[in-house]
Amino acid sequence: MGIRVGIAGVSGYAGVELLRLLHRHPAVRITALSAGRGAGRALSDLWPGWTGAALPPVGRLDVDHLAEHCDVVFLALPHGVSQTVVPALLERGVDVVDLGADHRLTDPEAYAAAYGAPHTCPELLSLATYGLPEQNRDVLAGARLVACPGCYPTATAIAALPLVEEGLADLVFSDCLSGISGAGRKAGPRNLYAEVQESVTAYGLAGAHRHTPEMEQALGVPVVFSPHLVPMVRGMLATVKVRLRRPVSGEELRDLYRERYARHPAVVVRDEVPATRDVRGTAAAHVFPLVDIRREVATVVSAIDNLGKGAAGQAVHAFNLSRGLPETAGLPLVPLLP
Amino acid sequence: MGIRVGIAGVSGYAGVELLRLLHRHPAVRITALSAGRGAGRALSDLWPGWTGAALPPVGRLDVDHLAEHCDVVFLALPHGVSQTVVPALLERGVDVVDLGADHRLTDPEAYAAAYGAPHTCPELLSLATYGLPEQNRDVLAGARLVACPGCYPTATAIAALPLVEEGLADLVFSDCLSGISGAGRKAGPRNLYAEVQESVTAYGLAGAHRHTPEMEQALGVPVVFSPHLVPMVRGMLATVKVRLRRPVSGEELRDLYRERYARHPAVVVRDEVPATRDVRGTAAAHVFPLVDIRREVATVVSAIDNLGKGAAGQAVHAFNLSRGLPETAGLPLVPLLP
Amino acid sequence: MGIRVGIAGVSGYAGVELLRLLHRHPAVRITALSAGRGAGRALSDLWPGWTGAALPPVGRLDVDHLAEHCDVVFLALPHGVSQTVVPALLERGVDVVDLGADHRLTDPEAYAAAYGAPHTCPELLSLATYGLPEQNRDVLAGARLVACPGCYPTATAIAALPLVEEGLADLVFSDCLSGISGAGRKAGPRNLYAEVQESVTAYGLAGAHRHTPEMEQALGVPVVFSPHLVPMVRGMLATVKVRLRRPVSGEELRDLYRERYARHPAVVVRDEVPATRDVRGTAAAHVFPLVDIRREVATVVSAIDNLGKGAAGQAVHAFNLSRGLPETAGLPLVPLLP
Amino acid sequence: MGIRVGIAGVSGYAGVELLRLLHRHPAVRITALSAGRGAGRALSDLWPGWTGAALPPVGRLDVDHLAEHCDVVFLALPHGVSQTVVPALLERGVDVVDLGADHRLTDPEAYAAAYGAPHTCPELLSLATYGLPEQNRDVLAGARLVACPGCYPTATAIAALPLVEEGLADLVFSDCLSGISGAGRKAGPRNLYAEVQESVTAYGLAGAHRHTPEMEQALGVPVVFSPHLVPMVRGMLATVKVRLRRPVSGEELRDLYRERYARHPAVVVRDEVPATRDVRGTAAAHVFPLVDIRREVATVVSAIDNLGKGAAGQAVHAFNLSRGLPETAGLPLVPLLP
Repeated sequence: MGIRVGIAGVSGYAGVELLRLLHRHPAVRITALSAGRGAGRALSDLWPGWTGAALPPVGRLDVDHLAEHCDVVFLALPHGVSQTVVPALLERGVDVVDLGADHRLTDPEAYAAAYGAPHTCPELLSLATYGLPEQNRDVLAGARLVACPGCYPTATAIAALPLVEEGLADLVFSDCLSGISGAGRKAGPRNLYAEVQESVTAYGLAGAHRHTPEMEQALGVPVVFSPHLVPMVRGMLATVKVRLRRPVSGEELRDLYRERYARHPAVVVRDEVPATRDVRGTAAAHVFPLVDIRREVATVVSAIDNLGKGAAGQAVHAFNLSRGLPETAGLPLVPLLP
Repeated sequence: MGIRVGIAGVSGYAGVELLRLLHRHPAVRITALSAGRGAGRALSDLWPGWTGAALPPVGRLDVDHLAEHCDVVFLALPHGVSQTVVPALLERGVDVVDLGADHRLTDPEAYAAAYGAPHTCPELLSLATYGLPEQNRDVLAGARLVACPGCYPTATAIAALPLVEEGLADLVFSDCLSGISGAGRKAGPRNLYAEVQESVTAYGLAGAHRHTPEMEQALGVPVVFSPHLVPMVRGMLATVKVRLRRPVSGEELRDLYRERYARHPAVVVRDEVPATRDVRGTAAAHVFPLVDIRREVATVVSAIDNLGKGAAGQAVHAFNLSRGLPETAGLPLVPLLP
Repeated sequence: MGIRVGIAGVSGYAGVELLRLLHRHPAVRITALSAGRGAGRALSDLWPGWTGAALPPVGRLDVDHLAEHCDVVFLALPHGVSQTVVPALLERGVDVVDLGADHRLTDPEAYAAAYGAPHTCPELLSLATYGLPEQNRDVLAGARLVACPGCYPTATAIAALPLVEEGLADLVFSDCLSGISGAGRKAGPRNLYAEVQESVTAYGLAGAHRHTPEMEQALGVPVVFSPHLVPMVRGMLATVKVRLRRPVSGEELRDLYRERYARHPAVVVRDEVPATRDVRGTAAAHVFPLVDIRREVATVVSAIDNLGKGAAGQAVHAFNLSRGLPETAGLPLVPLLP
Repeated sequence: MGIRVGIAGVSGYAGVELLRLLHRHPAVRITALSAGRGAGRALSDLWPGWTGAALPPVGRLDVDHLAEHCDVVFLALPHGVSQTVVPALLERGVDVVDLGADHRLTDPEAYAAAYGAPHTCPELLSLATYGLPEQNRDVLAGARLVACPGCYPTATAIAALPLVEEGLADLVFSDCLSGISGAGRKAGPRNLYAEVQESVTAYGLAGAHRHTPEMEQALGVPVVFSPHLVPMVRGMLATVKVRLRRPVSGEELRDLYRERYARHPAVVVRDEVPATRDVRGTAAAHVFPLVDIRREVATVVSAIDNLGKGAAGQAVHAFNLSRGLPETAGLPLVPLLP
């Protein structure tokens, strides 16, 4: 039959991508759907492209209903909402894969500082497992609460982890370019077509973006993070620069990355700069490291799909690991081209 | 195990979409790949997003090689090329699914008029089966040479067939909007980014487009076809208008479409105008008919993915029917959103 | 010196385009600005690109203020608002160029049917002059209230007028493609980036769009109007099809258009299909007529900038005529390329 | 009347933008046009949007013709071409504003290293004046050969100059995002619509881009330059990061920028991050500096139009200065919105 899975937040972009991935996952049956907006409406009202699909109706977020019908629930909810339902779900025996930000930071004070209010259930922060497979594959086995990484921290970590682990970096510059779907489906000037098409900008600079502490927690060094919005729907590119603490050749660096990611099926070390189109619709990250000998700087570029490896795809990956399923079961690893 | 399948023309947009679909098709094994440009290069040189996939090397178009390794070959080749290899493939026992235009028109003179040169093997024209499942499902069973419809004829036929079959139309106006991937991967002013972004235009008006005779053959009535290029990569919308030969209510028209497509899994009759995003990456067509009582006109909108239902997706659909496989085996029917 | 001009609605897309055009108009001084949203804020808050410009502050819509400071006021307001201020402005001696829909239809009943409520000042409907220079150049001289045409009616009329005036058409099919800026700056699913990028759709079909009666009033024949939204910010293309009431050659049709528009500086009759990029940022329309002899159909394509010839540019054009200024004073007629 | 001006390279993107700006420049008359592709064709064949404009015919690049008809020639030519005509033009008394790269580097060896071949006329390198008005306003007066800065060096210099001049930086990280028009009008995979839409990538990393030595020459410190291509036609954003050599407050930094650019009409110091839309079609740069106290880093964002301030607009600006015209004569400083 398959693991009974629910998706909370199916009206959002990460939610509908989860739906696409879990709908074709060989070990899964989708048994519950909920949405804030749109509860009580047909799925086809929220997403006309799904007209005709045989799926459960879309209800409100209801712990009882989820506990009755699901073994695992994927939460794709706004900041602050998942912490209100996770304790009850866990208690009722339901495992949780949380795509939101509520359980990523382990330090309650860091959480409060970044999100502007104390966590309502701080003991969850130490219980959650950070769902970056390339960092935590082993500890994800059996995890009951997975905190899926943010999209920017994922792209930055994949690019910077080998440098940092090797002691080559004491400060990481990460400039990231994100598609507009990262801003969510709620209308505002930042995601209005005529305001973002044919324009780029930056935001959340100088440590102001909430993903900065998450990156620094994952990497253990300070990060100068500069996020940019570019006129595309999906995709994220991170260009990481590090002033090398000791000289390294391009060859050495490439070998370092090849070894580091050799047994990680969702990371491809490339011989040239990747583009986000190479990973569109996938749970993969493509990464390319190179050295500027003269300026003693390493530059590493990683490309992900912000809704794939940066959200739903990585969530399914972590779910597979938490359940002991084959690591790539149901995982999309080849792109939609062009 | 599985049917051994080759793809000729994998460097193009329809070719790489075939690769994506056949790679995950449960009844298929990909055993040969060829490309004009790029023969002898690794697949990852042509499509870096496919780096690391376990697939055969990319060779030149070679009938002997294909005959040795394949039961079926999908041809995604420029106009005029497939007619040079199809006879030998069929003779060697290899079935052919041709995505190109070479075998769509049944009349050799119509072919010569549209494509500017006589067909080199005109007897194939009567042998080929036009691969529109909604028109030819039964005759596709066992077909050895499938001529897949063009993207514009597909979108137009899905919208207009019920009207025409019912005798309601003696002239069809079809205005179609196409994504730029339809222009192919060869660089030219029509597909240069800075020339097409933030601009729309029309072309091939007044019967000049080669898809016009194909539409008229499929529908059996004259078609005034106006194709437009719009700044998006994938997707096609057809807006068909018909001056009704007798009064019809909106209800009647909707029922007509519902019945006509009731048992066709790749067509969804909608209650509102579809958008091409609803079918992105799929082999489905969404269609919505409505009546303007006062002006005695029916307007029908259909949406397809020009590379899906308009090319590779429909090719896989026709392949399934030709082989007696489950009709929707390996067929993508839910979209990539957003 | 110069004519003292106010702009009401400067926070919207048509408003800011008016600002750009009037700011460099040689016969004009901008003396008042108002905005619904954003009243009391600096212009640079509404439009950061205007930071540093020496312009009046942005206030609320205030008839007294406008009457004191302006000879002419351009209104770029939502439906229904301008009829509440026009009577007082005219009475106070201020001329009005209205870019909105309130005074386009001459028949109060047609107005009420299209806009869902009776006009509050129906006597204005007969007083207003429809601001299509190619139709009403002479009557615009001295006009105190100009009702600027809608974007779709402008594009359709430029393409269809010669055919209709020549008695060649008894039914006009107009399929139009519009950039998203036409939907305005208020956020909603129709103008959210991730909902409209890489997708096209149609809407307001079968006579449901409010511009249909306006087109039929301007042309005097029934119009089957099919508007489409395409993923670009600015630009509009109309593809008009007409079943010819008598045979016409392509040559004849081209001559007809050349003569009709010979002395109209904002219309260029082209020898090939125009693209909207050809008129980006301009007050011009490019038009191309051709005949399908076999199907006895004429197809005419016109391209405008929906915010230029379709709104602010044409408003300035009509203003010039109403004031007896040189017809092309301050009128942008060459495009921003690429 | 007016200075007689020629444009060489009018078939390219910078060339046609020059045409737009010089066509409306009050002190200029356009007296010669040339194009590599398209010589002998009408301007309207190259740019249909210019159909009907009264301009000289488009000829080949011909020094005699230019010398006879022009006081000044603007060169918008591929690398290596302008050095073949500049000596003769200067000798014949024609001043030159060169938008290309041939005369930007002052050191012949640096030129040869960056462009792969020795300069054919190295004495020009010391004769040319680097046309960055914010650095060289005074020395531009009377300049006979202006070497207009590259787009990336312009964006980077505007952002970094105050920091560097103040001794705050010993290494500059510059991540730039460029619209695709920067890749020129020659077709290739880098500017094909379906290859760049919905995708971003980086290129020319680790010092490989030819603009790196130009930046380092302008700033006098090493630069780690990371250029990115984003799916838009026009626009460029530079995000410059500098590890501060001594602590600086945000207030101090803002004041530093305000003072530095107080009397430079083409630079606007903003209170928030600019977007490229704010400067679309203009010769202006918008810049925003801020400090990350905790990480001791300054981040400065500048936005330009790569074809405006980054090419044709800045060329006209430098031309004005070289001729003693009012600095902003004919200079577009307000954007096309939206």
